[in-house]
Amino acid sequence: MRTRVVFLLAAIAAALSSNAQVSDSITIKRIADEIMTNGKAYENLRFLCKNIGPRLSGSANAQKAVEATARMLKEAGADTVYLQPCMVPHWIRGEKETGYIQLANGSKHKLNLCALGNAVGTGKKGAMASVIEVRSFAELDGLGEKLVKGKIIFFNFPMNPAYINTFNAYGEAGSARRAGASAAAKYGAIAVMVRSLASNLDDYPHTGWTGYNDSFPKIPAVAISTNDAEWLSRELRKKMQLTAYIRTTCEMLADAPSYNVVGEIRGSILPEEIITVGGHLDSWDLAEGAHDDGAGCVQSIEIIRSLKAAGIKPKRTVRAVMFMNEENGGRGGHAYLEEAKKKNEQHIFALESDGGGFTPRAFGLEMKDEKIKKIQLWKDLFFNYGVYQLAAGGAGSDIEPLNELGTPLAGLYPDSQRYFDLHHAANDSFESVSKRELHLGAVNMAAFVWLVSEYGL
Amino acid sequence: MRTRVVFLLAAIAAALSSNAQVSDSITIKRIADEIMTNGKAYENLRFLCKNIGPRLSGSANAQKAVEATARMLKEAGADTVYLQPCMVPHWIRGEKETGYIQLANGSKHKLNLCALGNAVGTGKKGAMASVIEVRSFAELDGLGEKLVKGKIIFFNFPMNPAYINTFNAYGEAGSARRAGASAAAKYGAIAVMVRSLASNLDDYPHTGWTGYNDSFPKIPAVAISTNDAEWLSRELRKKMQLTAYIRTTCEMLADAPSYNVVGEIRGSILPEEIITVGGHLDSWDLAEGAHDDGAGCVQSIEIIRSLKAAGIKPKRTVRAVMFMNEENGGRGGHAYLEEAKKKNEQHIFALESDGGGFTPRAFGLEMKDEKIKKIQLWKDLFFNYGVYQLAAGGAGSDIEPLNELGTPLAGLYPDSQRYFDLHHAANDSFESVSKRELHLGAVNMAAFVWLVSEYGL
Repeated sequence: MRTRVVFLLAAIAAALSSNAQVSDSITIKRIADEIMTNGKAYENLRFLCKNIGPRLSGSANAQKAVEATARMLKEAGADTVYLQPCMVPHWIRGEKETGYIQLANGSKHKLNLCALGNAVGTGKKGAMASVIEVRSFAELDGLGEKLVKGKIIFFNFPMNPAYINTFNAYGEAGSARRAGASAAAKYGAIAVMVRSLASNLDDYPHTGWTGYNDSFPKIPAVAISTNDAEWLSRELRKKMQLTAYIRTTCEMLADAPSYNVVGEIRGSILPEEIITVGGHLDSWDLAEGAHDDGAGCVQSIEIIRSLKAAGIKPKRTVRAVMFMNEENGGRGGHAYLEEAKKKNEQHIFALESDGGGFTPRAFGLEMKDEKIKKIQLWKDLFFNYGVYQLAAGGAGSDIEPLNELGTPLAGLYPDSQRYFDLHHAANDSFESVSKRELHLGAVNMAAFVWLVSEYGL
Repeated sequence: MRTRVVFLLAAIAAALSSNAQVSDSITIKRIADEIMTNGKAYENLRFLCKNIGPRLSGSANAQKAVEATARMLKEAGADTVYLQPCMVPHWIRGEKETGYIQLANGSKHKLNLCALGNAVGTGKKGAMASVIEVRSFAELDGLGEKLVKGKIIFFNFPMNPAYINTFNAYGEAGSARRAGASAAAKYGAIAVMVRSLASNLDDYPHTGWTGYNDSFPKIPAVAISTNDAEWLSRELRKKMQLTAYIRTTCEMLADAPSYNVVGEIRGSILPEEIITVGGHLDSWDLAEGAHDDGAGCVQSIEIIRSLKAAGIKPKRTVRAVMFMNEENGGRGGHAYLEEAKKKNEQHIFALESDGGGFTPRAFGLEMKDEKIKKIQLWKDLFFNYGVYQLAAGGAGSDIEPLNELGTPLAGLYPDSQRYFDLHHAANDSFESVSKRELHLGAVNMAAFVWLVSEYGL
């Protein structure tokens, strides 16, 4: 590309449907210019990733992140900054996991693996057994206790590359990670290996939450890299029997104290009407949690900063929240609801960013149809900034408890193509985030928050 | 993000406006599934980047790329593959450039710099002079011959971060790179240093074409990294005078023979009506040219491959073209036009991908309004694949010569946020490309090409 000037979007301003929209577009441009030119989200993310690092609930790093984001909110100019206590599950990975496949010639193929979050460990001796591949739960049921008992089950559920929205592939293939351990334990398996929920082929294992059904024994559960899953599947097709060894010393400790971090600009006219914008501060322990969800946190702080820096006074209260414990418990989101109920707060809108710091495309709206229709009238105001769709869709698990209060909810939907190359894996690092993409997400969030602060819902 | 299933796009199929559109959407889904599941564009790009590397016009690597893409087109199943000769400018960089700023204490601040493409060199002795910063051409004119003569002019034109479409910032700030040398030579400058056209701050110098006005002496021209530009600007504000040294041994040799590479599927009903889809095969010499424009080449080959693999027979001829010499001459595009005229070919549509292998957002349409309106009727067919805008805009410099034949032209517009972090610099490498984003671009191009092959324009 040598030189090409693009005029594609020039006609959009003319398309705005009223004088009010023209005036709104000017305010939004002020906010956008502030964020794209002077935004601090990227540097705040660098601090979270590089000076702190992984932030698993209950860890010392999670506490450092609480303190750091409280400081960032103060520096951003929030009128009030406070911590909201919540008890969180405290799962620890223990020693670095090991595992291998025993080959016929006596050598061992080392596996790139990690324990799944909240899983029980094998203990120091590890677990060794024949490994059986299944490609569906039906196939597992077909094998039954006779073939499964005493074995290690390898769930090889690839993400379907034909889904354009990778979250759909994640939802589908993710059943093995979420529920595979108990499904296999039902038939007497001693452990499970799950193909990493990754959209690419590489050597990173991807962790993530697994659940147990109390009706069955809790058995160890690990993820192996997609390259290892492909290799293992090929080897199993060649030979009828292969033996696997895995060793994990993860365990669930007693609940630990932690916090949501809250910073707000008090509304100038209707301060009792609260708009929440947030992300989750905890991350898995294998990665810096740059996209998941450092991005959502620093974008939310940027809403506060940009409104203050641009001298815009929202009519309603705008509150940025760093939720704790999204990944393996959701306790922060529930604590936020409980405090809202206790204080009888009036939550008129909540917005979460938990789809990565990628270029924005849409907002998913979880609210009544008539409110969706109202928001869709603002569509042209977002268009120049990359968001072109405002439609029904899930909002985000930290704010979903607010459904109990009837609060209209929304989620930022960034482009999903790259997310599952790095989600919950060691390559979810600061280097994988584009400053402009991160800031452009914040621009759209800020525009949405400002519009609701101005007009209500 | 733990688990969120997104239903955002579920209602789209229902929105298609006729039975014909439903049938078209099924064909497009077949093509999309083929590309997203079995696509070869990413592996072909790996070969171009890693097995060949930089592909500057006239270089041995450019010739290797000609041979490699001819092979790829055959493997993709093209009915006919041929080379189209063209003579290209043969500019060479010579020895690695060096340069520094002489500091008051006698030490030297080494600059990360590179010669601009097509520029003359300083020769082995280099050039040394006081350096003067200008932030606009008006400022340069204000200084005039008295202050400029004998100096090195430092054009510090940053890309404006507030432009959401980064091509607009590139177009604006790029005037210094394109025309700065002659503007400064007019007043007797001995050389120019240009701030790299980069949207981020880092140490990579970004090369790119520069032009000379024959009315003035041709003087050496280099780009320095944005970090160096920021540093130099600060230093110049502290001191009135700093001396710069640069040494470049680049030179323009005699024109060299080269080729466009062409592969086509002959139309089943109207073979004389030709649809061109292309990218440019040459790249600058500092980088693997992954996004610029290996991406456009392998996407174009993928159109041929996916139609063949999905068993879809286009009614009109579909021709993939790897254009040579987009970066520093445009000779391939002109040769393509000349051969079309000589053979009296009927070119009904041409599409270029030269905006990087990023997630697709739009097509820019360079054609009469009534044709734009016709194409806009297909909008819903693209929506599920990420393209949501079909509007007037520049198409691509390799196909623009076809304007002479009245051919309707289009360009793929991927998301632009990351492009100028790496454009024309050493970090435009294979690793910077997402397989899914690259393939999703090819999906939209294939859909567009297929629709035109089916319905004409």
